[in-house]
Amino acid sequence: MTVKVVIIGGGSSYTPEIIEGLVARHDQFPISEIALVDIEQGRAKLQTIEQLAQRMVAKSGKPIKVTAHFDRRQALEGAHFVTSQIRVGGLKAREKDERIPLSHGLLGQETNGAGGIFKALRTIPVLLDIAEDMAAICPDAWLLNFTNPAGMVTEALMKHGKHKQVIGVCNIPFNMRTGVAEVLQCETNDVEIEFVGLNHFIFGRRVLIKGEDRTEEVLEKLKDPDNQYSPANIVSEGWSDLFLSAFKLLPNPYHSYYFKGASMLEKSIEDYNKNGTRAEVVQTVEESLFKKYDDVTLDHKPEELEQRGGAYYSDAACNIMTSIFNDSGDVQTVNTLNNGAISDLPDDAVIETNALIGKQGPRTLSIGKLPLGVKGIVQLMKNMEELVIEAAVTGDTHYLYQALLINPLVRDEALAETVMNELLEAHKDDLPQFYKNV
Amino acid sequence: MTVKVVIIGGGSSYTPEIIEGLVARHDQFPISEIALVDIEQGRAKLQTIEQLAQRMVAKSGKPIKVTAHFDRRQALEGAHFVTSQIRVGGLKAREKDERIPLSHGLLGQETNGAGGIFKALRTIPVLLDIAEDMAAICPDAWLLNFTNPAGMVTEALMKHGKHKQVIGVCNIPFNMRTGVAEVLQCETNDVEIEFVGLNHFIFGRRVLIKGEDRTEEVLEKLKDPDNQYSPANIVSEGWSDLFLSAFKLLPNPYHSYYFKGASMLEKSIEDYNKNGTRAEVVQTVEESLFKKYDDVTLDHKPEELEQRGGAYYSDAACNIMTSIFNDSGDVQTVNTLNNGAISDLPDDAVIETNALIGKQGPRTLSIGKLPLGVKGIVQLMKNMEELVIEAAVTGDTHYLYQALLINPLVRDEALAETVMNELLEAHKDDLPQFYKNV
Amino acid sequence: MTVKVVIIGGGSSYTPEIIEGLVARHDQFPISEIALVDIEQGRAKLQTIEQLAQRMVAKSGKPIKVTAHFDRRQALEGAHFVTSQIRVGGLKAREKDERIPLSHGLLGQETNGAGGIFKALRTIPVLLDIAEDMAAICPDAWLLNFTNPAGMVTEALMKHGKHKQVIGVCNIPFNMRTGVAEVLQCETNDVEIEFVGLNHFIFGRRVLIKGEDRTEEVLEKLKDPDNQYSPANIVSEGWSDLFLSAFKLLPNPYHSYYFKGASMLEKSIEDYNKNGTRAEVVQTVEESLFKKYDDVTLDHKPEELEQRGGAYYSDAACNIMTSIFNDSGDVQTVNTLNNGAISDLPDDAVIETNALIGKQGPRTLSIGKLPLGVKGIVQLMKNMEELVIEAAVTGDTHYLYQALLINPLVRDEALAETVMNELLEAHKDDLPQFYKNV
Amino acid sequence: MTVKVVIIGGGSSYTPEIIEGLVARHDQFPISEIALVDIEQGRAKLQTIEQLAQRMVAKSGKPIKVTAHFDRRQALEGAHFVTSQIRVGGLKAREKDERIPLSHGLLGQETNGAGGIFKALRTIPVLLDIAEDMAAICPDAWLLNFTNPAGMVTEALMKHGKHKQVIGVCNIPFNMRTGVAEVLQCETNDVEIEFVGLNHFIFGRRVLIKGEDRTEEVLEKLKDPDNQYSPANIVSEGWSDLFLSAFKLLPNPYHSYYFKGASMLEKSIEDYNKNGTRAEVVQTVEESLFKKYDDVTLDHKPEELEQRGGAYYSDAACNIMTSIFNDSGDVQTVNTLNNGAISDLPDDAVIETNALIGKQGPRTLSIGKLPLGVKGIVQLMKNMEELVIEAAVTGDTHYLYQALLINPLVRDEALAETVMNELLEAHKDDLPQFYKNV
Repeated sequence: MTVKVVIIGGGSSYTPEIIEGLVARHDQFPISEIALVDIEQGRAKLQTIEQLAQRMVAKSGKPIKVTAHFDRRQALEGAHFVTSQIRVGGLKAREKDERIPLSHGLLGQETNGAGGIFKALRTIPVLLDIAEDMAAICPDAWLLNFTNPAGMVTEALMKHGKHKQVIGVCNIPFNMRTGVAEVLQCETNDVEIEFVGLNHFIFGRRVLIKGEDRTEEVLEKLKDPDNQYSPANIVSEGWSDLFLSAFKLLPNPYHSYYFKGASMLEKSIEDYNKNGTRAEVVQTVEESLFKKYDDVTLDHKPEELEQRGGAYYSDAACNIMTSIFNDSGDVQTVNTLNNGAISDLPDDAVIETNALIGKQGPRTLSIGKLPLGVKGIVQLMKNMEELVIEAAVTGDTHYLYQALLINPLVRDEALAETVMNELLEAHKDDLPQFYKNV
Repeated sequence: MTVKVVIIGGGSSYTPEIIEGLVARHDQFPISEIALVDIEQGRAKLQTIEQLAQRMVAKSGKPIKVTAHFDRRQALEGAHFVTSQIRVGGLKAREKDERIPLSHGLLGQETNGAGGIFKALRTIPVLLDIAEDMAAICPDAWLLNFTNPAGMVTEALMKHGKHKQVIGVCNIPFNMRTGVAEVLQCETNDVEIEFVGLNHFIFGRRVLIKGEDRTEEVLEKLKDPDNQYSPANIVSEGWSDLFLSAFKLLPNPYHSYYFKGASMLEKSIEDYNKNGTRAEVVQTVEESLFKKYDDVTLDHKPEELEQRGGAYYSDAACNIMTSIFNDSGDVQTVNTLNNGAISDLPDDAVIETNALIGKQGPRTLSIGKLPLGVKGIVQLMKNMEELVIEAAVTGDTHYLYQALLINPLVRDEALAETVMNELLEAHKDDLPQFYKNV
Repeated sequence: MTVKVVIIGGGSSYTPEIIEGLVARHDQFPISEIALVDIEQGRAKLQTIEQLAQRMVAKSGKPIKVTAHFDRRQALEGAHFVTSQIRVGGLKAREKDERIPLSHGLLGQETNGAGGIFKALRTIPVLLDIAEDMAAICPDAWLLNFTNPAGMVTEALMKHGKHKQVIGVCNIPFNMRTGVAEVLQCETNDVEIEFVGLNHFIFGRRVLIKGEDRTEEVLEKLKDPDNQYSPANIVSEGWSDLFLSAFKLLPNPYHSYYFKGASMLEKSIEDYNKNGTRAEVVQTVEESLFKKYDDVTLDHKPEELEQRGGAYYSDAACNIMTSIFNDSGDVQTVNTLNNGAISDLPDDAVIETNALIGKQGPRTLSIGKLPLGVKGIVQLMKNMEELVIEAAVTGDTHYLYQALLINPLVRDEALAETVMNELLEAHKDDLPQFYKNV
Repeated sequence: MTVKVVIIGGGSSYTPEIIEGLVARHDQFPISEIALVDIEQGRAKLQTIEQLAQRMVAKSGKPIKVTAHFDRRQALEGAHFVTSQIRVGGLKAREKDERIPLSHGLLGQETNGAGGIFKALRTIPVLLDIAEDMAAICPDAWLLNFTNPAGMVTEALMKHGKHKQVIGVCNIPFNMRTGVAEVLQCETNDVEIEFVGLNHFIFGRRVLIKGEDRTEEVLEKLKDPDNQYSPANIVSEGWSDLFLSAFKLLPNPYHSYYFKGASMLEKSIEDYNKNGTRAEVVQTVEESLFKKYDDVTLDHKPEELEQRGGAYYSDAACNIMTSIFNDSGDVQTVNTLNNGAISDLPDDAVIETNALIGKQGPRTLSIGKLPLGVKGIVQLMKNMEELVIEAAVTGDTHYLYQALLINPLVRDEALAETVMNELLEAHKDDLPQFYKNV
């Protein structure tokens, strides 16, 4: 039996991580081929990655074939698993998503606020195309999407895509478990968190260590400013005692944007003035990474990659593929259809949630009602996502404007219009759905 | 048959309006007694109002007895209808609700934002006491509450009160109909608006004139800045073409606070610097009104009262009482239990909605789903209200903090805590539930 | 302005009733044309009816044109209102619906049990065709369907039809009001019943007389066996004291089939042995009626028609048309989309419910939860209807079998299959959707 | 650390099975004490069981103390797990539950139909007492209830009990997995069934063998009459090809009562005429079992017990206790709160469902909507259960009558009343809640 994994966006600087993950799991997850796919503009990068991947595989001695493709449909033939980590418009587009809202005093980041909405608008149509190809070419394969904003992209795929075997992946839940492990000084594998919410808007409702409920203790410890957890790419500032006592929920780092807006904005502006946008910082990091990757003696993932930001994304994806392949039935945190798991959200919404992962994909654990203190804000965020998805598939600026206006990081009639128009113009080439009638 | 109307907060400067309304409707709604009730501190005002009311009734020649009471339970005996228009803590408390949040750059007003939340905290326990008295003394009477924030107060009464024959009343829906009548140059009575939402967060989904759907036309006309509708007490600024085209909903004037925050804040500060708080302005208006009321030759509601702000509140209340009395079954807009009328909101939520008004009280028209563009923001507001009500009845600052933090007019971790503490301290005497364990 | 009413199934023996109703309401509802439509096989009857209608109109002196058509599309041109009262397969088909189930000991009647299901299967496709024609030819017209089973037919039209301005009509709610009026010795117009449920499975939750709640009194009086209400076409047997006390709901006559199955079956068999099927009885009545109609001196609806069974159907339809035309906004009982009115039933279900009737059609009164004692049985009936509709539009016998098996009047694995096969065979010519692949 | 298991109804003939199960699992689930509890009337039996248990433990060499108690509160001290397998009124009461309905031609059995309802009425108050004791004495202990009707009893405990750590247990799901294993000739442990529904009204929606979906194959094989699965105590008759093809669900043996009523009734009467009630048959089996148990050389569970009927109940209970103790997180089928897992049923309903079992109890897998073909009938059964629970806690015959009338095994106005009155009289001594005002 052969197992083929296709990596769309294979020229990404993150790819070595997923290669490392696949090689390391080869005993339980014996794949026979890794097919890297990218677009023509990324030819040089893809070739660099392909060669590095070849060296990594060779070093491992595992019988895995590595191939590179610029024709996606060809690559998908015979695929069992497909991962997606693309960036439509590249870092140049990201730079605009970050700079333009901030220039109007609007907070946000690659995946949230006005910029995150535009990333969704550019990305969703491309993922729908991928899903269409998969439905035709490899209908039994699983798509693991970790292209951001992963929650909205997954919901768009479930609502409008032709291929329904889709799982959205994010590293935040894993990072939160790691953070809790540090705080409690225990093993990450022993940390179970009952997650409730949406991608980048997820809360931990309960922390269990080997079945013991230690939520109170974790919340207590998080009151100590030294005990914070946060991914590398976003600023962390900790949470007040009152916040932790009142909500009794573990926030995720992105919640700072929504609940600590004033200080986040200040820091964002300061940061921008010092270093430019995060996109520009990343650009430099990427260049330096690719310089390393080009080194023909390099045969492993370099340590620098871990500081790049999205650590553990690939790990999460590898774990899910392994569990599907082996019908493991272990609990992992994924983006999947709500289908009643959270009764306060629509059935056809995608939520980020714990699920048993097996051959049939994820089976969600039932959650029930949202915690009273965050019910409305989660519903608001989901509604905002629904509007973004409608905008992305229809190209209707009315939906887009509504999404921007109710987004807590915009919510101003005049600014929403201004930033919408500027971003539509800036991303013109990557948003054909909004210009189809011109 | 005798019909007795009890007016709690009878010493209010608004009372002449309701007296006028009751007198004018006497043919269809033949009441035999108006009992004015107020607290001891309001003795002078109540006496002024009582005498003015006597003169108004005398002039009309209607056989109505007017009485004044400082013992509420005594006044409630034999009551058929009870109205409530009270201000716990008086204008002094309002002044704090307005000044303290603004001093931290937080937008708001008597009924919304941090100040509105504190008004609810002070008011809800008193209304629950009134409901308890009514359940014991006049269990068949209807309570018409127009004490603000009317939606939250009504929901608190439905959830926690001993007396369930309660209807919440607001003048905004009527004002919106009047505004539309002006815009379309037709009679207010011919304007039907399908309302959807919550008190002070209501939208018009459809405008019917004699059954014809003229929603598009109204929205189009509202794009002209001269065609605005707004009550006297809040600033109006109009809505952009894009807002009106995208949402296809008639906003109410309070929506400016949520969707036009930046300019509203600027104007609020400007206004404060020029005139002080609205409470202080009203204080002056009130003094001048009572001076008029004291004039023993005055035997009608003076015109100045209409500029006071809450015009049509009493009218709305009088209409409802008349329809209940006559089992009219006409459509009026009230605050009442959702009970499934809006499927996206909890059954036990109070909504502001069209209902048939008859002897058995309101029978709500089914609404179905909220419009997609505002679903989440309405759910958020309702969730915020739920938290305020929990805080008001338990005196638990954790609920209060959650309500403040998710309120779109606060939503900052540090500011929520600061403003909460300052307002708790400022209103200490009127918030015994938060100080019971001290 | 001209107003055109199209009567599909115009050759029905009921048509004189609707003609009478339209003539009588001409002052408020000034129609200019009545177009009678029927199929070629009904040519003789249609002509008889047309001529009778001409005589009735002539006698009234109203300026109404009466026309007869065998081309439905032609008749629909310029229509404002369309009524449907058809019988696919005629009384011959009805005879099979009644005889075949009974031959297996299965209870039922024209509109319920296995026979009622097959009537739906024959009827739904024809009504969907009518809706398609209306969408193309008279898209603004209202369709008033009183073809049975009216609830299922209306739901099929709302789910699968191309024309959504549809209202389902039944005479049972009106009959229940009349029955209550008799019991309480008051005017039918003063009787308001809060209806809850489905067509032919409707309950009265509350009886109001001029706003006074007299439910208890009605229930008490119904315990007297002389105080029954029932339409002419179904047997009535009264309800036990315990039933009335326990449920505190007014049943409708069809509930006897579900709750008094044993005695109903006994009577049905007795009746069949004595008189044959109801279809055969009706056949005789019809012949005698048409003999009367042929009399060229007859210029009014003959009294015998009232004993025919479906009295007040036409009345209900005329009332609705008049209220739509005049935007009256009065409360009438119709079959329309649930859309949240009953929270225990799907949004896309059709329910029988009180609604305000105006130019925009029905606006449903919110009902909330079903009464606990009948929640499950109403949900079961609705589920059965959903399955019938699926079967009718797909021709899938699996849906049909499921519908039969869970129907409380069948619910036996072996009998469901037997009766299904016999009825499918018997109605072969009228059920093309089940034979399309043969 | 000591672990104490309390067995309420310890004098039951089933107890040796649970003793065997506890001894066999001692390595993973090292209990230190088994406390057997029974009522005074069962003294002789309890002593027999205690001595047999002592011998079984002695033979195993495990360090487990066995104690016997007639004071339940004393036995509960220090308990970690409590199982309940009681029969209020004993086999004499069961005999009435079986005989009286059948004498009126009503189908049913110990746990369903009119008899099952009365078993619930007798049992629920006793279990509520046990829960009250546990809340006071061993608040951290888990109650595993396998007293029938297990679903209703568990729901009553969750709604009205003082102790919420309750799990309902039934052997049917395990038996269905065993049956499928036989049909597919594989290991029971490899069979996963996605269960949907209620206790004794559960369906299998999907069969997975090591993650492969083999539902179609199982349904196909069940069409062969030799491939049936059924517990010993109820008659099995197989399902028609059409039933299996149309519903695409695995029925459980109790579904014969609902979908194959005619033949079941025939067999029940035949069986009764031949052997008397099942209670009487069991009486004989019990006597013979206790004779065996009294044999002082017996030190293991005798084989005859397996033919007794309830095989695997104890196994199910032992598995759950072991998984809780070890925080295993494996999937087991339990009766627990719906809490949104099935969106078509109330949140506070108890459903029979797959759940992860760990230290915090069950965490339910989300199910979503009920299959369309059985949605209504499951909702009806749940509604019936709700009414029974209301009747059991209030002693209100109106709820009881409603439950009987809508129960598909009764559903006749006159019979419901007759059987209700006869059973109320017959069980007078065990139904104090219905006689409290006499």
